[in-house]
Amino acid sequence: MVYPKKLKRLIENLCKLPGIGPKMAERLAHYILKMNEQEIEELADSIKQVKTSVKLCSICYCPTEEDICSICRDESRDRTTICVVKNMSALNAVERTKKYNGLYHVLDKIVAPLDGMSPEKERIEKLLERVSNGVKEVIIATDTDAEGEMTSNYLAEYLKKKKVKVTRLGYGMPVGGALEYADEITLGRSLEGRKEI
Amino acid sequence: MVYPKKLKRLIENLCKLPGIGPKMAERLAHYILKMNEQEIEELADSIKQVKTSVKLCSICYCPTEEDICSICRDESRDRTTICVVKNMSALNAVERTKKYNGLYHVLDKIVAPLDGMSPEKERIEKLLERVSNGVKEVIIATDTDAEGEMTSNYLAEYLKKKKVKVTRLGYGMPVGGALEYADEITLGRSLEGRKEI
Repeated sequence: MVYPKKLKRLIENLCKLPGIGPKMAERLAHYILKMNEQEIEELADSIKQVKTSVKLCSICYCPTEEDICSICRDESRDRTTICVVKNMSALNAVERTKKYNGLYHVLDKIVAPLDGMSPEKERIEKLLERVSNGVKEVIIATDTDAEGEMTSNYLAEYLKKKKVKVTRLGYGMPVGGALEYADEITLGRSLEGRKEI
Repeated sequence: MVYPKKLKRLIENLCKLPGIGPKMAERLAHYILKMNEQEIEELADSIKQVKTSVKLCSICYCPTEEDICSICRDESRDRTTICVVKNMSALNAVERTKKYNGLYHVLDKIVAPLDGMSPEKERIEKLLERVSNGVKEVIIATDTDAEGEMTSNYLAEYLKKKKVKVTRLGYGMPVGGALEYADEITLGRSLEGRKEI
């Protein structure tokens, strides 16, 4: 590539970010080159600031600027239910349903043997500690793929020693889905979970 | 979204970059949050530095840290040929062929009426000025799509007033292509451009 050093350096640094390949990095670098100084300062500063001011909630591991996140601090939330999610995208997905008013527990790492990964011991111990303090139900809301299922089973092993109701997201047909295109496992689960109308 | 302010700010800033949507921005922001301080400093610094130290070559408009870019400075290059390209990705594509040893002229903006865009006057005037100084051939290597063709015609209008050979990239079948899947225009051009073997 015919690029001056500093531009090459930026392209290489952008390439290290997840989901950004060499072509995308080039495109971004050229875009950044055309941004005005104020915009550049704002972007660079927001990258630096996020590390120094955002930490993880000491209860549920959500990112927060305080010791305890806004959800854990919210008095109107039901403190007897914990929803276990893989990450913040999953948490936000549950929040968007507006059907849940309990607390959360963010795992970050899930059980993924192929990547040699499993949830951090510290986070599981924290979950068990929270469960011991008056929690009535733990909803395991990990993805419904193989790794999500493994994580669910893994957590259930720990949780069944505690006196707490452990639930899993309900399986079934996605709303607006056509039976014709549903896979047989989903449709099977949907039949098992049928409801009287 | 349940995010602390600083994290939201980073996500919003990342979202402004081309080709990065809200989901991707979230993913990147979480990744940046997990990077160590040195990596963050390096990324933020490379973003800032690129603006302050990279400028455009005063001859061909390539990004460079000097006044004149490495290609224009290279004495071994053929100074009688100029290849006009849309951007640095196109320039690098031509360089990768290893079939070209002349100089370049980067347009940045091409003729795109739908986006209300056309090449900067300054860059066209610079090209005409360069052509007047002993250049024998101008190869117009813009894309072969509608906008690239328009840009090519647009430049040809200016260049035909000068005593210079103006050429366009050859059309034809891509190497390794199957006739069955070639569109009729490409195949037609390929027939027109047939060569004796």
